[in-house]
Amino acid sequence: MAGSSYGKLFQITTWGESHGRALGVVIDGCPSGLPLSEDDIQAFLDRRKPGRTKISTPRKEDDKVEILSGVFEGRTTGTPISLIVTNTSQRSTDYGEIANYYRPGHADYTFDQKYGFRDYRGGGRSSGRETIGRVAAGAIASKLLSTLGIRLTAYTRSIGPITIDEKNFDVQAILDTPTCMPDRKASEKAEAYLADCMKSFDSAGGIIECKIEGCPAGIGEPVFDKLDAELSKAIMSIGAVKAVEIGDGTQTALHRGSENNDAFRMQDGRVTKATNHAGGILGGISDGSAILLRAYVKPTPSIFSKQQTVNKQGEDIEITIKGRHDPVIVPRAVVVVESMAAIALLDAMLVNMGARVENLHKIYGK
Amino acid sequence: MAGSSYGKLFQITTWGESHGRALGVVIDGCPSGLPLSEDDIQAFLDRRKPGRTKISTPRKEDDKVEILSGVFEGRTTGTPISLIVTNTSQRSTDYGEIANYYRPGHADYTFDQKYGFRDYRGGGRSSGRETIGRVAAGAIASKLLSTLGIRLTAYTRSIGPITIDEKNFDVQAILDTPTCMPDRKASEKAEAYLADCMKSFDSAGGIIECKIEGCPAGIGEPVFDKLDAELSKAIMSIGAVKAVEIGDGTQTALHRGSENNDAFRMQDGRVTKATNHAGGILGGISDGSAILLRAYVKPTPSIFSKQQTVNKQGEDIEITIKGRHDPVIVPRAVVVVESMAAIALLDAMLVNMGARVENLHKIYGK
Amino acid sequence: MAGSSYGKLFQITTWGESHGRALGVVIDGCPSGLPLSEDDIQAFLDRRKPGRTKISTPRKEDDKVEILSGVFEGRTTGTPISLIVTNTSQRSTDYGEIANYYRPGHADYTFDQKYGFRDYRGGGRSSGRETIGRVAAGAIASKLLSTLGIRLTAYTRSIGPITIDEKNFDVQAILDTPTCMPDRKASEKAEAYLADCMKSFDSAGGIIECKIEGCPAGIGEPVFDKLDAELSKAIMSIGAVKAVEIGDGTQTALHRGSENNDAFRMQDGRVTKATNHAGGILGGISDGSAILLRAYVKPTPSIFSKQQTVNKQGEDIEITIKGRHDPVIVPRAVVVVESMAAIALLDAMLVNMGARVENLHKIYGK
Amino acid sequence: MAGSSYGKLFQITTWGESHGRALGVVIDGCPSGLPLSEDDIQAFLDRRKPGRTKISTPRKEDDKVEILSGVFEGRTTGTPISLIVTNTSQRSTDYGEIANYYRPGHADYTFDQKYGFRDYRGGGRSSGRETIGRVAAGAIASKLLSTLGIRLTAYTRSIGPITIDEKNFDVQAILDTPTCMPDRKASEKAEAYLADCMKSFDSAGGIIECKIEGCPAGIGEPVFDKLDAELSKAIMSIGAVKAVEIGDGTQTALHRGSENNDAFRMQDGRVTKATNHAGGILGGISDGSAILLRAYVKPTPSIFSKQQTVNKQGEDIEITIKGRHDPVIVPRAVVVVESMAAIALLDAMLVNMGARVENLHKIYGK
Repeated sequence: MAGSSYGKLFQITTWGESHGRALGVVIDGCPSGLPLSEDDIQAFLDRRKPGRTKISTPRKEDDKVEILSGVFEGRTTGTPISLIVTNTSQRSTDYGEIANYYRPGHADYTFDQKYGFRDYRGGGRSSGRETIGRVAAGAIASKLLSTLGIRLTAYTRSIGPITIDEKNFDVQAILDTPTCMPDRKASEKAEAYLADCMKSFDSAGGIIECKIEGCPAGIGEPVFDKLDAELSKAIMSIGAVKAVEIGDGTQTALHRGSENNDAFRMQDGRVTKATNHAGGILGGISDGSAILLRAYVKPTPSIFSKQQTVNKQGEDIEITIKGRHDPVIVPRAVVVVESMAAIALLDAMLVNMGARVENLHKIYGK
Repeated sequence: MAGSSYGKLFQITTWGESHGRALGVVIDGCPSGLPLSEDDIQAFLDRRKPGRTKISTPRKEDDKVEILSGVFEGRTTGTPISLIVTNTSQRSTDYGEIANYYRPGHADYTFDQKYGFRDYRGGGRSSGRETIGRVAAGAIASKLLSTLGIRLTAYTRSIGPITIDEKNFDVQAILDTPTCMPDRKASEKAEAYLADCMKSFDSAGGIIECKIEGCPAGIGEPVFDKLDAELSKAIMSIGAVKAVEIGDGTQTALHRGSENNDAFRMQDGRVTKATNHAGGILGGISDGSAILLRAYVKPTPSIFSKQQTVNKQGEDIEITIKGRHDPVIVPRAVVVVESMAAIALLDAMLVNMGARVENLHKIYGK
Repeated sequence: MAGSSYGKLFQITTWGESHGRALGVVIDGCPSGLPLSEDDIQAFLDRRKPGRTKISTPRKEDDKVEILSGVFEGRTTGTPISLIVTNTSQRSTDYGEIANYYRPGHADYTFDQKYGFRDYRGGGRSSGRETIGRVAAGAIASKLLSTLGIRLTAYTRSIGPITIDEKNFDVQAILDTPTCMPDRKASEKAEAYLADCMKSFDSAGGIIECKIEGCPAGIGEPVFDKLDAELSKAIMSIGAVKAVEIGDGTQTALHRGSENNDAFRMQDGRVTKATNHAGGILGGISDGSAILLRAYVKPTPSIFSKQQTVNKQGEDIEITIKGRHDPVIVPRAVVVVESMAAIALLDAMLVNMGARVENLHKIYGK
Repeated sequence: MAGSSYGKLFQITTWGESHGRALGVVIDGCPSGLPLSEDDIQAFLDRRKPGRTKISTPRKEDDKVEILSGVFEGRTTGTPISLIVTNTSQRSTDYGEIANYYRPGHADYTFDQKYGFRDYRGGGRSSGRETIGRVAAGAIASKLLSTLGIRLTAYTRSIGPITIDEKNFDVQAILDTPTCMPDRKASEKAEAYLADCMKSFDSAGGIIECKIEGCPAGIGEPVFDKLDAELSKAIMSIGAVKAVEIGDGTQTALHRGSENNDAFRMQDGRVTKATNHAGGILGGISDGSAILLRAYVKPTPSIFSKQQTVNKQGEDIEITIKGRHDPVIVPRAVVVVESMAAIALLDAMLVNMGARVENLHKIYGK
């Protein structure tokens, strides 16, 4: 309720500050019997690790995860899974001076307004490091979904003005390129664009796209807890995301009904849609086609050019931010988007289990 | 949890189908002592009423609200406020034949997949009439917020390709024009555009903008329940909304950090921002400047041209939808967006009341 | 969250005051496909109706329920079921004078302290009439549970010093006797005891017992949401209940481990317990034997003898309560206990559906 | 939702198994600005530590708590407080053989039925060690409540047939005696009784009483979330508690209204009650007098005499439990009851902050 928990039945609670002793997450409500190891989770965490390339912060963060509870003899027990990552590479001295002023584009001012003071070291709780817990939980949700034939694929769609070309789509490139773009040519252009940003002490934004394939029809609740509403909250809760869209999203505002409606057609004896402008969700409920969503990410607020701000004494000042910061958040946020989508979908699937009386009979019938 | 409730402390639960006996909402958690009459609520409901102009359905819906509980001697008592609107103008015969097929762009197919069958009359629970409960509750939230100096203003920003010109901004026009645009010239153009859509048996989409002024800094929880995340869920849960953005939203993906960051400046002894690209929210917490959000609305799926679909027997068929439908959802959804924003904000303000120990002392101190 | 809702997945929200226009309940999360009619619900409501005998208030309350939504062609649709009972027999004049003082044993004082003022007519929201919504929802939960072979039986165990004798147990007597005791002899004694209470302008308390048979093992969550914890909250939330116990309950404090432990034994190839001191719940999870709970109900606070209290002017005064009041709450609360137990159990069963990965495969597997 | 979280606004999530790497709790929603150190928490944990006397298990559990997040410069920041206790003294070999059978009175069987298998080492998640998280969180809730002048005092009221004598009430004895009884004489008798139990390889139950002084009137929600309902759930969720009562509790079933009603009287210009049969709660809302509750605790199920049970092969067997077990749970559960009561009360106080419009003006008014 105080906002560090997400989910109704698959409920995750993240904790930890950028420069505290550790960060972690507790996952309550993970069904029992899922094979799970630290390697499963580490693989996801490694996708958000910095320091992999010249376009990310030179900070070294090992981010080794430990499972403290909820797994026994290699399988989830149904009880809370506690995951922890110990902080090792925090140089608090870099952050000492930001205690006294408010960085533009950051949460320094709003935290002070809300709580009266803040843990200013590295952004404290508002740091991107908070997403460690999300990604660790997302690894578990994704693994469980995969046993049901559901696959999530997130990637960078654009960085600044550079957008992927669907014709060059190459899944492997998502993991290979430093931009997490599924288009190697676009990725090279984006790297050049970022190099230019860095030269001018500036940063860039971009778009992350996530595709969910294999989701059965019928998931999502019809009114406030529509599947698209839940996904929107989950994705918008990621720091730096400023817009979310489903399917054709913003473009639908320009469409006419005749071009936006997806015709239903029979194919191989099953109901399908001839097109998918809706992005796999109708009336808040999955329709069996691929779910498509996009997150618009703002440029990194930590830039190295001079900026105007105020200090705690209420004086106008000019600052230059120091430290180690990514020139773009997008590539490292790709796995965060994928994780939040997986968590939101799994949670909706658990909630939906009791939608029909016949489902109760399937589980409890004699 | 099954999705017909919204809010943690200011909790609304809507119920009712398009063609059932009645629709309504229960508001639990409204603070005591707010002066409230049926007129306060009716004024909001009248803003979503159809039949006002040639661009909306000729259906007549009186939609008279009754307060059944929770108000005593003209003030809210703190206990649940039950509001009901009796259905009077439902012609079920219009909808008989849709029982047997799935309308493109509607929730017919997904409801059947989720629940095994559906109340097909007029869309049942997935009808736009469900928003009556949201708007009735929004009237109360708005009234309470106004006592704290918080004003919400929602309006149509665009219909199809026609967008308002900020230079013509005229608040009164929101209530006067059939498009709910704050720009009379744009509204006329939009009306012409809609007339054209109707002539070709087609429909249009558009964008709704909502501005919240007077919100104190500090509202919203820092991680999953960010104010922008809550607003996104609230807005995306409105049928036909396919994208949500905060502040510069989708545009931030193209910005550089140096243009996107809002400088802090002292003004009249108070911290302000020189610009407001962030749309009034930093790190998920309100920063004291105006909150700005935009909802992208798809074109009405009920169009009168021929469409392809399948029936319950699993046959490809061609249909022509009958009945009375708006050629654009946007104008009638304006007050729904305003309502959901008010509800989400008030709820966040209630949650925030315990953010500091000193707040408990203000309420409980001796 | 403001307390008029109960349940996580089978969520009920009650509304209405004793002397308002109507009272009701919205049930969200009822699975689709359950045959349901107003008669099903009325049968439960009739069990809590007053005026059946000389030991209950001579008020006539017809309490006719109407289904306003959520049922189509005789079956639940999965969407919110809105039930309403219109108030018809309220004589507000009886209650005028209690506006100015605080009745001992009632919530008058605490409502004023919480909300600043109260709807004083007939107790307003704190009236026993609020339980109409609980019982209406309980009828639905019970019906659904019965399709799974789960039966709940609640009855009066004692009134004042008169307790049933297990040897005389007669289920039919629960419905036949004015006391709802399953022992006709005890019931006659209890009636005599109540007649004596009434003669001295006094009232009596008692104990309600509820037995749940046919519940599968495995229901309930292991830590805070233990099945016994959920039942305790559900039962203690009924006005006038001052203690709740499971199985041997208070007596276990006097037992030794050797007499309190229930031995497990094989019977007909199934694990059973030789005794049932635990009342069907071990570690917060149902064990497959009968669930047993007891609610201790205080005497009706509205008595007709003189009482000391204070008025709103802060003066000590002496009052004599008028109106029509039951000399004992117990018989009418029997169906309320049964209803709350049914609701709590069904909710726990819905939550438990996702306890194992294999359950997801049963619902979503191809 | 999966039951390892408690609270709406002051929300705690416990995790960890008896013999896992560690146990802990995340507290989300603790208001900012509360001075807090590990010593504050350790003092509470030490009260539940075993090995202090001959009547508790000779296991040595150091249970040193570490604060991993949420506290900065000695004060709570408003963000999640993560507390961890590393397991050091677990001898898993003692528990190997219980993997194959179901201990009477324990949750072995029900965990297997729910989840398909279980972490059998030392009871896993159903171990009393789970309460470490509750007590750690309770220390924080208690400290915050104390700043508002609210004091909680829990103690052993009885062990088996030995009950304290109110005339001997001595607060210091709660901390001094191995029984946590506030009556040294009764404590000595209880010790003798326990020695006798141990001699016969048996165990004892008892009653824990908790008194809350200084709570303002007006706390608790009127219908389902009554303060007594919340306390009941919180207390009943403690393993081994089989009954909960408020005020005169079970005795009220025998009372007449005239003896059970508490008269209101003016005292020093304030409304008070002449007696307190209600235990400080009327209509689910605190009335300003002391809140009184009692938890009835069953005897330790782990006894050393022979017991009958079944094994996983479905055979009737006879077992003798080994290991180190307390002959009575009551003394170590005293601080758990106090903790859960503190958590439930603080949560209710946070929820109540928005009960009146005027409260919002106190926090947000200009």
